[in-house]
Amino acid sequence: MLPKAIVLLSGGLDSTTCLAIAKSEGYDCYALSVDYGQRHIAELSAAQTIAKHFNVIEHQILNIDLSTLGGSSLTDKNLQVQDYSNSKNIPNTYVPARNTIMLSLALAYAEVVGAYDIFIGANVVDYSNYPDCRPAFLSSFEHLAQLATKVGAEGQSIRIHAPLLHWSKSRIIQEGLALGVNYGMTVSCYRLSKEGKACGTCDSCVMRKNGFIELQTQDPTIYNT
Amino acid sequence: MLPKAIVLLSGGLDSTTCLAIAKSEGYDCYALSVDYGQRHIAELSAAQTIAKHFNVIEHQILNIDLSTLGGSSLTDKNLQVQDYSNSKNIPNTYVPARNTIMLSLALAYAEVVGAYDIFIGANVVDYSNYPDCRPAFLSSFEHLAQLATKVGAEGQSIRIHAPLLHWSKSRIIQEGLALGVNYGMTVSCYRLSKEGKACGTCDSCVMRKNGFIELQTQDPTIYNT
Repeated sequence: MLPKAIVLLSGGLDSTTCLAIAKSEGYDCYALSVDYGQRHIAELSAAQTIAKHFNVIEHQILNIDLSTLGGSSLTDKNLQVQDYSNSKNIPNTYVPARNTIMLSLALAYAEVVGAYDIFIGANVVDYSNYPDCRPAFLSSFEHLAQLATKVGAEGQSIRIHAPLLHWSKSRIIQEGLALGVNYGMTVSCYRLSKEGKACGTCDSCVMRKNGFIELQTQDPTIYNT
Repeated sequence: MLPKAIVLLSGGLDSTTCLAIAKSEGYDCYALSVDYGQRHIAELSAAQTIAKHFNVIEHQILNIDLSTLGGSSLTDKNLQVQDYSNSKNIPNTYVPARNTIMLSLALAYAEVVGAYDIFIGANVVDYSNYPDCRPAFLSSFEHLAQLATKVGAEGQSIRIHAPLLHWSKSRIIQEGLALGVNYGMTVSCYRLSKEGKACGTCDSCVMRKNGFIELQTQDPTIYNT
């Protein structure tokens, strides 16, 4: 029997690559997607296709409406998603405590299915200065997971894997392509049109585009600009 | 302007006392209740009454259906809530990673409203050996909160308050009564009847009953047994 892993799967480029890596490392994968009131649900529908493609054991979609709380342009329709700017400030697409919430839910799921490994596509290089993508945050969560759970209290180690953490976007794409990822299935844009076209100018689009350009590879995304 | 605090409010005895304490310490309180697919919603309706009674600035109720994941008799209808037993084992009312999830959501809420203080009614004395009620867990979460958030990354301290942590149930009730808490508004039973009667034999009922008996005070709860 293969060891089990929970993989956080948004349907974007990073988390899809992360799932491919978890599979290649020999885990039976349980995918977890969280519908937290994002602007569009194209990501979730991509997540479903991807989970199926990678033959996960189970794909859970949890609903939690963080738009009630607001505080981010991704969940609050009154805030506009900004264009990419190469600044050190945290952009308004930052969702308060998002990765803490995602990892907590993954931890609950891990405890239920008996998994001790959690994969998250966090990345510190291209990732817009989000505080909850930093290595220190992830180590701190791993420490917390040990204390937070029944299995942890009984001495079992719980590991948080962030294989993409120090990779550039082009390296992520390169590794994913080597594992057979079809990036046409993934959605990155923060403000996808109803027709499924990516804006090409939000943080997420710009970073994706540059990754493919650097790699001199065709990006299967259809861009508006 | 008073400092702001998020108070996790389930509608039970502990979290209600915790709210009374936060108020008495001079915070503007924002109550957060989480509907995670518990067996009954009497607790949430109690939480609403209590939040109103204590004049909170805002009361948010977030829905997240943890029953999809299962793993606890509180969220999985196929598992039976056990009677109280004075053992060192973790009972099946344990909800995987519950306090980690609750605190993560409180952290998101804190970041949105600009609060740096979070109150949780965790208790280590009477609390059935749940791993996520231990002091080490709470310190670890406080450390994580610092790393997880925009304000934390900017140097602002975030504090997790668990004022009930080392108190016996009778001490909790005594402190609450001194602050004017009406325990008739609170719901503790894990398997309340449709008529609103408490079972009197689950962990939560037994601990509550014993607390009132020790204090030689009338428990306003209506028990079946």
